Parts: sequence; structure tokens; C-alpha cells
Amino acid sequence: MINVVKIGGGVLENSDSTRAFLDAFARIEGPKVLIHGGGRLATTMAERLGIPTQMVEGRRITDAQTLQVVTMVYGGLVNKQVVAQLQARGINAMGITGADMNFMLAKKRPLKNGIDYGFVGDVVATQGKMLLQLLEQGITPIVAPLTHDGQGTLLNTNADTMAAETAKALAQSAHHEVALTFCFEKPGVLANPEDDKSVIGDITPDSYICLKQDGVVSGGMLPKLDNAFSSIEAGVVQVRITSISDLQGGTLIHK
Amino acid sequence: MINVVKIGGGVLENSDSTRAFLDAFARIEGPKVLIHGGGRLATTMAERLGIPTQMVEGRRITDAQTLQVVTMVYGGLVNKQVVAQLQARGINAMGITGADMNFMLAKKRPLKNGIDYGFVGDVVATQGKMLLQLLEQGITPIVAPLTHDGQGTLLNTNADTMAAETAKALAQSAHHEVALTFCFEKPGVLANPEDDKSVIGDITPDSYICLKQDGVVSGGMLPKLDNAFSSIEAGVVQVRITSISDLQGGTLIHK
Repeated sequence: MINVVKIGGGVLENSDSTRAFLDAFARIEGPKVLIHGGGRLATTMAERLGIPTQMVEGRRITDAQTLQVVTMVYGGLVNKQVVAQLQARGINAMGITGADMNFMLAKKRPLKNGIDYGFVGDVVATQGKMLLQLLEQGITPIVAPLTHDGQGTLLNTNADTMAAETAKALAQSAHHEVALTFCFEKPGVLANPEDDKSVIGDITPDSYICLKQDGVVSGGMLPKLDNAFSSIEAGVVQVRITSISDLQGGTLIHK
Repeated sequence: MINVVKIGGGVLENSDSTRAFLDAFARIEGPKVLIHGGGRLATTMAERLGIPTQMVEGRRITDAQTLQVVTMVYGGLVNKQVVAQLQARGINAMGITGADMNFMLAKKRPLKNGIDYGFVGDVVATQGKMLLQLLEQGITPIVAPLTHDGQGTLLNTNADTMAAETAKALAQSAHHEVALTFCFEKPGVLANPEDDKSVIGDITPDSYICLKQDGVVSGGMLPKLDNAFSSIEAGVVQVRITSISDLQGGTLIHK
């Protein structure tokens, strides 16, 4: 089993939660891949540099200056600190972006409903085999949410999407089963957003339709669940949405 | 022959000279490794963030805030842009620091003459075999001047030293010959710093002693040449100090 784990930038903002998460991640047995966010840290750094942050439906408008900030923060600050801290835990981590080894190729998002997202990339190809080769060498890839267009330009790409694409590419090129875990501040998908005890234990394609119709699931959870189901469709055996303190719990998404 | 090339941060500050250098680097045949600096870009970014830059004998005093800046600028901004631009030239580049794959382990520099350099690392071990494995897979490692202490802390490390240590480690673990090139703004080691045509064609250990005694070579060139000779001693077949426009010219350092 290969474990692909996505950790949100919110967890990595705080050194206590970072430590707790990295301890839990280091304990996962077998080959594994970590994809991290870093959005809030990028917002803080942009503020310090006097660069305005513009979000549309939870997505960052990435002009040339903002691209520099996310390249620094995701590819440098967050990625390299995570790598160094995993090395200290005996994990042979290696940090990559989509540009490294041409791991994930994307194209710049075209205007959408008149909105120019700037240097934002939509994934077009993922090199699962290259990643598998690293895993076979005992290396744990740590992926920052940046892709490239193959023409020399880096692109800001959603970390949830990159996690799903990574899991799919591994499922398609590996003789292993692949599990995907989205790890964030909440204990799972909640029936009542105000109540952390209202975790929905499992979601299937059928129950997902009802949850959407009833408005139980909405907002930022929708793209996460869409990514989860597209991964299941593409051969990933299970997807879990959970908190850092309970990597075996939370919400299980399956067929 | 494996080519290890070091490029100074000065060249990478300017997009024209970056392009010219990357074109030349892409044309080098066979396995190759690039080590880049980025010092001036770090100084600019520190200024924008209101973090004072303190240099002692050409070395940056690296407090916790400055470590964040160099991690962002070297490991993120410079490294990932170089990787993406080499991918566009058909080179399968992968960016690493000393923390990635535990490539280069260092220890925090102790107080020297009462000076606390902060988070500056002196190299203690380099994994030549791991690098060789990447080279054999057709990957071109792009090394940012950061190491780690194995305890979770990144350390700022001189890029010339990292280039020399990389070349030495490869020379010791490879069945290939290894050549090291230091590439910077000047056409080579100059007999007269004011005259770019006064390039010293070659330097041997004996002639180096004279050049130092006569004061022809001084300042920032001394550690570069010390690194060059220590590489030769450790089995590197040749070291060249030259400009980006003449990778075959400049000053040749040999036994």
C-alpha cells in the first residue's frame, strides 16, 4: 500500500501542530508521499512585502509578484523545513514541485467567467513512474503545490488537486494499492459544521448526491470531495478526510 | 566525465545573463550538476522585509529571520525558477538542498574569533552515491546552498564550498572523472583586477603560492582557489574559473 497524504497549510502555520503531524506522518509504514499547502503563510508573506492578496472562490489570483511569493513560501520555506524535520525523524524526505523531474505538467488556466486567475495551473500530466522510482529507492517525496508549463514558467496549483492527481498517477503505474488521506484542522466531514463530533463516518457516490442536495456538504468541502471521488474512479482504493490526530479515523470515501 | 558547475548569484540576478548561462549549461554533454548561489537576491529580499543584512568577511550572519529569507530565496525562488527554465530546455532538472535525501549534512559553525555566524553550516558529510543514482537516471541535480544538521535545522552554506564538496564526493564514489567549474561575472582569475584581459591561464599549487605571496590573488578569490585545490587533492581532475560566456576558457587549476 502506498499512502498519499495531503496536509493543509493551516496545520503548518503552527509549530506544535506541525510537530504533531510530522510525528504521525513519520509513523506511517511503507512507501508514502506528502503533499503540503501553505496558503496562509503565503498570505502573511505577501502582506509583509506589501503585495495585495486577492481570492476568488477560495482560489488565489496569482499575478507575477504573487507567483514569486508562492514559489518562495511553498517551494522554499515550507517545503525545505518539512524535509529537514522529516530527516530528523529518520525519513529520507526529498522536496519537489511539479517542475522537478517534470513531475507535474500544467497549463495556465484560461479566463473563467471573465476572471483571470493569473499564473494558476490546471494539471495536464503527472509522472507516476518517476515518483515510483523514488519510492522504490526508499525516498519519501514531499510535494509543494507548484507545477510548471514546460516552457519555463512555474504555476500555482491547488494542493488538494495535486494530491488527487498524485494518487491517481501512482494507482495507474504501480502494482501497489494507493490510499489518499486529506488531513486538516477538522476531524472529518461534519454533518453540522459547528459540532466537531458530527463526523460522517463514510460517504459513497450515492450518499454524496444526497449530502449535496440536502446542503449538508458545501463550500470548500465540495472540491475536496470531488477530488476524492475522481481519485476513487481512477483506481485509488480509499480516500480519507481527517485530522492530524487521527490518521485512521475521520470520514472514509469509497465506492 | 561528470561536470559540476557552480554559478554565482550575481549572474542569476539578471534575466539576460541567466538565460545565457542556462543555454550554455544545457549544452554541456553528459551527466552534470549545478550548484547556484543567490546571495544578492537574498539581500534584496531581506531589505524588502526590513531584516538587516550583516556580512563579516563576505559571509552572511544568519540569524533566525535571515535563515527564513535564504531558505525562501535559495531553496524556493532561485532553485525552482532554474529548474523550470532547464526543463524548458529539455534538461530533466531536479532541485535539491543538503536536506533533501540527506544529501549534505553540516554542523552549525561554532563561534569564530568571537563572531557568531548564526545558522551557518560547515559541511561534515556528502552523499555522493545518492547523487550518482540520480545522474544515472538521467536527472540533473540543481543544488541550492543550504545544508541541514540532521536534527531538523536548515543551515546557510557557502555555494563555492558546496560545489567543491559535491565534486569531491562524486570523484570518490564514481567510476567517472569529475570536472568542477566556477562560473562568475569575470572571465577568470585576473592578474590585474581592473583588466578583464589579464586572465591567468593556469594555476598550479606552486604558482598559487607565488600568486598569494605577490598579492596578485586576494580577497574573495582566495576561498574559491582554496576550494579548487582541495578538490584537486581529493581526486577532481580539473577545476576551471571562468565566465558564463566561455565555459571552456578562463583559468584552469590543476596539479
